[in-house]
Amino acid sequence: MTSYVSVIGPGDAATAEDVDHARRAGNLLARAGHVVITGGLNGVMEAAADGVRAAGGTALALLPGRNRDDASPGHSIVIPTGMGEMRNALVVRAADAILAIGGSWGTMSELSLALRTGVPVVALGGWEMPAPGVEEASSVEDAIRRIGRVLP
Amino acid sequence: MTSYVSVIGPGDAATAEDVDHARRAGNLLARAGHVVITGGLNGVMEAAADGVRAAGGTALALLPGRNRDDASPGHSIVIPTGMGEMRNALVVRAADAILAIGGSWGTMSELSLALRTGVPVVALGGWEMPAPGVEEASSVEDAIRRIGRVLP
Amino acid sequence: MTSYVSVIGPGDAATAEDVDHARRAGNLLARAGHVVITGGLNGVMEAAADGVRAAGGTALALLPGRNRDDASPGHSIVIPTGMGEMRNALVVRAADAILAIGGSWGTMSELSLALRTGVPVVALGGWEMPAPGVEEASSVEDAIRRIGRVLP
Amino acid sequence: MTSYVSVIGPGDAATAEDVDHARRAGNLLARAGHVVITGGLNGVMEAAADGVRAAGGTALALLPGRNRDDASPGHSIVIPTGMGEMRNALVVRAADAILAIGGSWGTMSELSLALRTGVPVVALGGWEMPAPGVEEASSVEDAIRRIGRVLP
Repeated sequence: MTSYVSVIGPGDAATAEDVDHARRAGNLLARAGHVVITGGLNGVMEAAADGVRAAGGTALALLPGRNRDDASPGHSIVIPTGMGEMRNALVVRAADAILAIGGSWGTMSELSLALRTGVPVVALGGWEMPAPGVEEASSVEDAIRRIGRVLP
Repeated sequence: MTSYVSVIGPGDAATAEDVDHARRAGNLLARAGHVVITGGLNGVMEAAADGVRAAGGTALALLPGRNRDDASPGHSIVIPTGMGEMRNALVVRAADAILAIGGSWGTMSELSLALRTGVPVVALGGWEMPAPGVEEASSVEDAIRRIGRVLP
Repeated sequence: MTSYVSVIGPGDAATAEDVDHARRAGNLLARAGHVVITGGLNGVMEAAADGVRAAGGTALALLPGRNRDDASPGHSIVIPTGMGEMRNALVVRAADAILAIGGSWGTMSELSLALRTGVPVVALGGWEMPAPGVEEASSVEDAIRRIGRVLP
Repeated sequence: MTSYVSVIGPGDAATAEDVDHARRAGNLLARAGHVVITGGLNGVMEAAADGVRAAGGTALALLPGRNRDDASPGHSIVIPTGMGEMRNALVVRAADAILAIGGSWGTMSELSLALRTGVPVVALGGWEMPAPGVEEASSVEDAIRRIGRVLP
């Protein structure tokens, strides 16, 4: 059965390293046959989708707004939810596992909701966690291995 | 650019004719290159997805519940929204056009919301409409032609 | 226990009769001790809230947008949902019973969702219904009596 | 104009001190004329509502489930959203300011979303924050003063 992995992380505030990590992670997740879900915009979301596209995989954008054209180009399926940042809850709910790359308050809101609702979270880089629950990866390859182990 | 068509209609209350129409409509929409969205369950939703799958297209399920396994098998991408019948609003919002096949109160809720928010609706069979706004098709082929004309 | 009645109906398209009915209905519902919920805007929503306020009751607005100031003035509690027309599903879900006054596609979307999910609907004026399920009232007083009978 | 303050914090995981803080905070917020919003359940949510009720104020519950009876008794208005933990986004969106008491992943998800969307957050106790943005209060009285300064 296909698994779904949401790749979350900062948009405007993504670092060059976050973007590099996200592109490679998206690529590896797609090669492993997983559907990748993102919030559809720039930064980590865009880079993950670009990596998926390069592998010929499926990247699904769950946009906050109502305009499909807002999605960054790597996404092959685009859902404009019109729910604003409430769409973060859909990004979490639709996932079998979460890969968090880099840190921001938006990322933190998704990661926290995932831990609250029992969706496994692997993190690469980003903020120090205020409590246990997240698996911290040491590299993109380590992150993908850890994601593979928590998928159904 | 890919267009998205939501095929809506009754689940348990679908007639044999609704199911036949939905399967053929899903097939023709997929052959025309459109992504087909449904509410993910049985009846018209299941038949439309089966038609899409037979054409090798993409059928996206927006499920009311949280369990991905609830989707009928023709769907290639499954999003468990956990929003209950509130997901009807997502089915409408994600669509460039709506094809309604058969009648039920759930179908009516989606069709009405589409007309309220400016999403074009083509109907095949189903209930008599209480006000103008819906394009009534005379056959599956006529419905697909009409959908084609209202897509962006 | 307090009961919750959602008064639904057209905004811009409300007739003078709809507005008069809504004001009197809001007033009687508040006198009976019910909390009145509306979509928070003009027309039937505004008039129902005005009637509630004149009785010293509670009118709760569930606004589609993010700006609390968009609510019409009779509402004593205002929730800006930011969900757009998806908030119609909250208006229905929050209600023990629905009173529909007048007709529009937005009204139809709420009324249909109510019937789909088992929330009783009483209608006063408005569109002809495409299927059974709605109790049709002959006057404001008759509507309030019928609402009283279906409340928990 | 009435202001709306969401009091957020752990349910089952609330400490005795969190509960004491929440009750006193709810009481002071109600005395100041604010509407208090909570997630409607136990722990900090229940205690805040109890404090509001003792002051004769309005405590609004935004429940995750569909059953109005799940709300703890201090709430005077209860909205069963049926959205699950997605209702956290409504708790944030409906607020002019957030008072976070104690720490949990659910609390963190709301607080993070507030900072992401520009809703001011004052915290009393709870987890160490991973980034700046939250005002840390030293007592219930200090928290209420800080809330008063950020309200519109």
